Amino acid sequence: MQLSEVGEFGLIHRLSAIIGGRGGDPSGVFVGLGDDAAGFQPPENRHLVATADMLVEEIHFRRSWLSSRALGWKALAVNLSDVAAMGGEPHFALVCIAVDSPTSVEYVEGIYAGMQSLAERFGVRIAGGDTVRSRAGLTLSITVVGSVEPERLATRAGARPGDLLVVTGTLGDSAAGCMALLAGPRAAEKVPPSVLEAHRLPQPRIAEARAAVATGAVTALMDISDGLAGDLHHICEESGVGAELDAGAIPLSEACRDAAARLRLDPLQLALTGGEDYELLLAVSPERVDEVRAAITEATGTRTSVVGQIQPAGCQLLLPNGTRVPLSGAGYQHFPSE
Amino acid sequence: MQLSEVGEFGLIHRLSAIIGGRGGDPSGVFVGLGDDAAGFQPPENRHLVATADMLVEEIHFRRSWLSSRALGWKALAVNLSDVAAMGGEPHFALVCIAVDSPTSVEYVEGIYAGMQSLAERFGVRIAGGDTVRSRAGLTLSITVVGSVEPERLATRAGARPGDLLVVTGTLGDSAAGCMALLAGPRAAEKVPPSVLEAHRLPQPRIAEARAAVATGAVTALMDISDGLAGDLHHICEESGVGAELDAGAIPLSEACRDAAARLRLDPLQLALTGGEDYELLLAVSPERVDEVRAAITEATGTRTSVVGQIQPAGCQLLLPNGTRVPLSGAGYQHFPSE
Repeated sequence: MQLSEVGEFGLIHRLSAIIGGRGGDPSGVFVGLGDDAAGFQPPENRHLVATADMLVEEIHFRRSWLSSRALGWKALAVNLSDVAAMGGEPHFALVCIAVDSPTSVEYVEGIYAGMQSLAERFGVRIAGGDTVRSRAGLTLSITVVGSVEPERLATRAGARPGDLLVVTGTLGDSAAGCMALLAGPRAAEKVPPSVLEAHRLPQPRIAEARAAVATGAVTALMDISDGLAGDLHHICEESGVGAELDAGAIPLSEACRDAAARLRLDPLQLALTGGEDYELLLAVSPERVDEVRAAITEATGTRTSVVGQIQPAGCQLLLPNGTRVPLSGAGYQHFPSE
Repeated sequence: MQLSEVGEFGLIHRLSAIIGGRGGDPSGVFVGLGDDAAGFQPPENRHLVATADMLVEEIHFRRSWLSSRALGWKALAVNLSDVAAMGGEPHFALVCIAVDSPTSVEYVEGIYAGMQSLAERFGVRIAGGDTVRSRAGLTLSITVVGSVEPERLATRAGARPGDLLVVTGTLGDSAAGCMALLAGPRAAEKVPPSVLEAHRLPQPRIAEARAAVATGAVTALMDISDGLAGDLHHICEESGVGAELDAGAIPLSEACRDAAARLRLDPLQLALTGGEDYELLLAVSPERVDEVRAAITEATGTRTSVVGQIQPAGCQLLLPNGTRVPLSGAGYQHFPSE
C-alpha cells in the first residue's frame, strides 16, 4: 500500500495500533501519541539519561541488508545501548522517521513492529515522535530517555590507572557481518549466520550494565559502537588516562574468525576498529573485578573478558609475541579526513 | 571549509565550542556532550514532557529561503513550541543532524549558533545528539525535554462544551511568508518583511503558555503548527467535542493581509490551513477567559483573541455574513491522499 493512500494521519493511526496508544503503563508514560509532547512521570530520586542517534539509509544501512523489522529493532537497540552505557534503565522513546514516497506502508509498519518487539522486551514505551516525508531514502532518528540512581551513574570519565578493562560478549562479529554484506549476497551466504545476526539485531546490554553498576565498583563505562580501539580512546580522553590492551585477550567468536578467514580479513582488526558491537566496555578497580564479572554473568549469562588495564598515559596494544605497538584510536568516523 | 577537512570528531569539537561543553548549569544538565548520553537532574515534583520534530531539506525548508542561523533557530523553536503546548518549561535538547558532503563546516556552525541563541533565551542546554553524513540534503531532528508541575500540565484532551477558544498573536503570517518564498525571490521582496520573519524565526510561546497554565483555568492547550482549522480538530478529537470558529474574530495582521493581497490569496485561508504559526490555541472556561487573557498579556505583552467556542459536537465556521459552513480539518499533511 502506498503512503499517499493513507496520508500522514492515516499512517500515524496505523503505527499507533502497533506501538500502543495513549494512557498509563509501567514505563511511567501517561501521555503518549496524540498530543504535542509525551508526558512522563520520572522515578523518584533518580537522574535522567537521554540519548539520540540517527540512522541514514545508504550510510548506516541498506534496505537489502536487513528486513524492515530488523531495521526498527536495530535503530532502537543502538539507543538502548547508550542508556546501558550510563548504567541506566530505559523508559521511553521518541521516534522520528523520514520516508520517501516509494516506501510502502507495510515497510514502515515493519520498522515499528521491530522497534516495538525490542521495546516490550525492556519495558520501553514508544511515546511520540514525528513522521515526515523525505525526497529520497529513509532516515530514522530515535531518542531514548531513561533513569539511573545517582550513585550508579557511570560515565566515561572515572577510569583510574590500575583499573582493569572488561568487555562483555565477543567483539568483531557485527563488523564481520557488515563486511560480508558489503562483499555481496554470495559472500553473505558463506559466513556463519550469527555474524549477520550480530550486525542486524544487536542486543543492548541493559541487564549486564545494571548488574555491573549495582556493585558500585565500575569507574567508567561505555558501549562499544565505533570499535574497541576508538572507544577506549574516548574513555582515556574523558578520564585523563592511558591504557594498554592485550591483543590475545580480546574475545573473538569462532564465527567471527571463520567469517574473517573467508573474507581475508584480520578478526582482531574487526574487533579493534570495526564497530557496531554494542557490547560494554568497563573500567573496574582490580580488587573488585571478579565480583563485577560474576555479577554480570550471574544476572545475564553473558560472558566477560579482561582485555587490558588503565595506565597513567599513552595507549598501546600488547601483541601475542610480547611486543607493544601504539594503539591508534581510528574507529569509524563520519566525514573521515582524506 | 569542507567537512572532510575536520572529520566527524573535529566537527563535534567545533560545535561543542558553540553550544558549551560538559558540566553543570542551571538547566539541570550535569553530563553534556562527550558521553554516551546526557545526564539530567529533573526538578522535584514535576512531570516531564518530551517532544521530537524532524525537518527535512526541500520538504520543510530550502536553504535559499533562510540563513543557517535561522534554520537552527527554527528547528529548535518548533520543539520549544511543543513544550509550551503542554504548559511546560524546556530544559535541554538533543540535536541529530545529517549533512551531505558539499555542506561547509561554517554552514553547520551557523545552524548551531542559531539554535544556541534561541536556547540561551530560554535557559535550554543543547546536551547531546548525533552528527552523521547524508547522501543528499540536510535533515535535522531535535528532541526537547522539559518539565511541568502536574497540576499545570495541559493536554489537548480537556476541552468542554462552552469553553472559549483563545489564540495568541496573529495567524497566517508564516504561511504568507512561505507562499511568498515559494513564489520566488521577486515576490518575497514585495511582501512585508515581518511575514518572512514569522516564517523564518518563529517565537515559541513558552512564557505565554506558562502564564496561562498558572491560572489553572486552561482546559486544553496546543500549538498551532498545521493551521488553526486542522489543529482545532485535534483538540476536538482528543477532547471528544466540537467547536465553532468565528471567522471575523481570527486575528490577521496588516502584514498578512497585505502579503495575501499581493499573492492573490485569502488571508483567512492562510490562517485556517497555512500552518507554522506556532501560536497557542487554548480552551478556557468562559467565566475565567478574561483572567487568562490578562495573565498572558501582562506577563509577555502578547495579544490574545477569542476566536470561537467549544460545543458538544460538529465543527463549523461562522462567516461574517452570519452563515455557518462546515469546517474541514484539512491542515497541512505529509503524504496527502491524492
